[in-house]
Amino acid sequence: MVSSGPIPGFTAVIPAGGIGSRLWPLSRADAPKFLHDLSGSGQTLLRDTWDRVVPLAGPERVVVVTGRAHRAAVEEQLPDLIDPNILLESEPRDSTAAIGLAAAVLERREPGVVIGSFAADHVIRDTRAFRRAVEEAVAVARTGLVTTVGITPTEPAIGFGYIHVDGRLDIEGAPNARRAEAFKEKPDLDTARKYVASGDYLWNAGMFVAKASVILEWIRRSEPELADGLEQLAEAWDTPSLRGPAVDRIWPKLKRIAFDYVVAEPAAAAGALAVVPGDFDWDDVGDFAAVARMHSSGRPTDLAILGENPTVLSDSSTGVVFASGKRVISLIGVKNIVVVDTPDALLVTTTENAQRVKSVVDALRLGGHGEVL
Amino acid sequence: MVSSGPIPGFTAVIPAGGIGSRLWPLSRADAPKFLHDLSGSGQTLLRDTWDRVVPLAGPERVVVVTGRAHRAAVEEQLPDLIDPNILLESEPRDSTAAIGLAAAVLERREPGVVIGSFAADHVIRDTRAFRRAVEEAVAVARTGLVTTVGITPTEPAIGFGYIHVDGRLDIEGAPNARRAEAFKEKPDLDTARKYVASGDYLWNAGMFVAKASVILEWIRRSEPELADGLEQLAEAWDTPSLRGPAVDRIWPKLKRIAFDYVVAEPAAAAGALAVVPGDFDWDDVGDFAAVARMHSSGRPTDLAILGENPTVLSDSSTGVVFASGKRVISLIGVKNIVVVDTPDALLVTTTENAQRVKSVVDALRLGGHGEVL
Repeated sequence: MVSSGPIPGFTAVIPAGGIGSRLWPLSRADAPKFLHDLSGSGQTLLRDTWDRVVPLAGPERVVVVTGRAHRAAVEEQLPDLIDPNILLESEPRDSTAAIGLAAAVLERREPGVVIGSFAADHVIRDTRAFRRAVEEAVAVARTGLVTTVGITPTEPAIGFGYIHVDGRLDIEGAPNARRAEAFKEKPDLDTARKYVASGDYLWNAGMFVAKASVILEWIRRSEPELADGLEQLAEAWDTPSLRGPAVDRIWPKLKRIAFDYVVAEPAAAAGALAVVPGDFDWDDVGDFAAVARMHSSGRPTDLAILGENPTVLSDSSTGVVFASGKRVISLIGVKNIVVVDTPDALLVTTTENAQRVKSVVDALRLGGHGEVL
Repeated sequence: MVSSGPIPGFTAVIPAGGIGSRLWPLSRADAPKFLHDLSGSGQTLLRDTWDRVVPLAGPERVVVVTGRAHRAAVEEQLPDLIDPNILLESEPRDSTAAIGLAAAVLERREPGVVIGSFAADHVIRDTRAFRRAVEEAVAVARTGLVTTVGITPTEPAIGFGYIHVDGRLDIEGAPNARRAEAFKEKPDLDTARKYVASGDYLWNAGMFVAKASVILEWIRRSEPELADGLEQLAEAWDTPSLRGPAVDRIWPKLKRIAFDYVVAEPAAAAGALAVVPGDFDWDDVGDFAAVARMHSSGRPTDLAILGENPTVLSDSSTGVVFASGKRVISLIGVKNIVVVDTPDALLVTTTENAQRVKSVVDALRLGGHGEVL
């Protein structure tokens, strides 16, 4: 029995920030990953995320944190996003600043609110199982724990981080919640196999649910200056004449640091992090190999063709091709190929080399080709 | 001792007709193979050919047979080509019509002339050895034999036809000339190895030298209607008011048939074909594998980068890339790759699949994409 309707006292936060460098030249500064349809749903990952979280929180309780440059695109994608709920960064300051800003602003608006942070550019298709996990996570979060939804692994993936889980917690409304023992960096294949075989490890999908006040407390413990900055921003935020000057003065000085380091790992170390296992499909679509995998449904003989009205002729080729120009693309006898065709840049690689795309982006930046990044 | 200056009584003919479908999307109807720099010389293959034959015949004794659509491009490439020496086809009718037209026109202008036909889109770098072979071939041709220059094989190539040679001919000025026994189609690898090991086989490079009158006689024996048409065209050709109507009336009805079938093979069967071995580098650059081979100098670890001002980043990739747009092209970890990037079409394949490009062209034609062919 799945409940329906918004979860009381819960607000969803969507940090929409990362460019997705490993998906260059599709993803880039002015067209980041969350503004693309990588799942084949026919709409952007951001819109997919919105559609997934709105039933949990209600359309007026979804907050998007994004860059000023993406405001128009986000508003176009999410016409039901109400104006107070789009939080604009003047420049990227990593995930602690983004989630922390939302926590600080929302705590002022509604003391005691529970928030859940869900990346704008991940793919989850089983929305019922997703909802069940989030409902349990909210129940846990109300007790004061930071809670994450970890994904039950389906294979010994080496591209994801893992969460080592401990014993069950006895919390009403969260029968599956467990204590998190520790976070583990992306493992090698042998280690990943041991993790999966043990049954005590979940993928870290970067989904966190907690009281806003609890998040702010953890930030204050590790990074008091950052916490001060966020509180000052929140104090000014909902007063139109004060917000702009506050952002200009404070935001650029905020420390760039990942939420995992400031909140999740210290909380786990202190025994204050809970995990709800998520038994649903999930992918962070981190590179083109992930895109190919997602679209081929696991069949290595397929060629996934993406883009608007692509004209692609393939003769015994496999992999993935993005056609964002209007050109005719022909592939002959290329296996596990990745072809990304955009108006000003072309990438040709293989799924095996998908993780190396970031190094090309770095080389282009150093080589003075920033105009295509 | 190599002689210099034009060979007396000799006229060079350059049939510039083939599109080069295996080099799509670089080569295409409005930009055929002979208008590209495939040798890395910095100029088109047509211009390379002109530069190679002008010393043999003199600039006023080089004739180009090409399509009306290519007139402007040919004139731009060959500013020294005199107007009477550009013979325009109203539509392609294969090599017998092209070479036969030149033979018929040139025989009327200068009875007894020896002509040599050299494709506009092959690569030869050793012009001294080329000259030596053509000089011998002209000496043989004066005796009334059809003469071809066959290339001494450097490897058991399966992409070329072969000529089986017989005993030496005893002709003054042609010490290396031999009688041709027969033409052989492209062989399989085992057969090619036997050919090369025997020392009795040369590559058929499609270079023919003969008296114009002799060529016309052989065409008449096999294809009398075609010969009649060519004679009628030649009769009208050098009278401006008659040429156009004659071309419109006669040309479209000429039989499409290859010169090898009509002239070379029957002459060989009759013992009337001679061969002069050419000990020089030669390639018909028939596909992208040939282009890659030519530019990598045989080193399989190289990536050949062609095009005007290409911006190509390669990370451990090999093969060949043509960049004819202004886009940034990145290749990561792709081996023996062929990437051809043009404004309206993109090809990605491997050198192993280079021969299959033609099938894509056929598929595009059938699929209604003729605009990119």
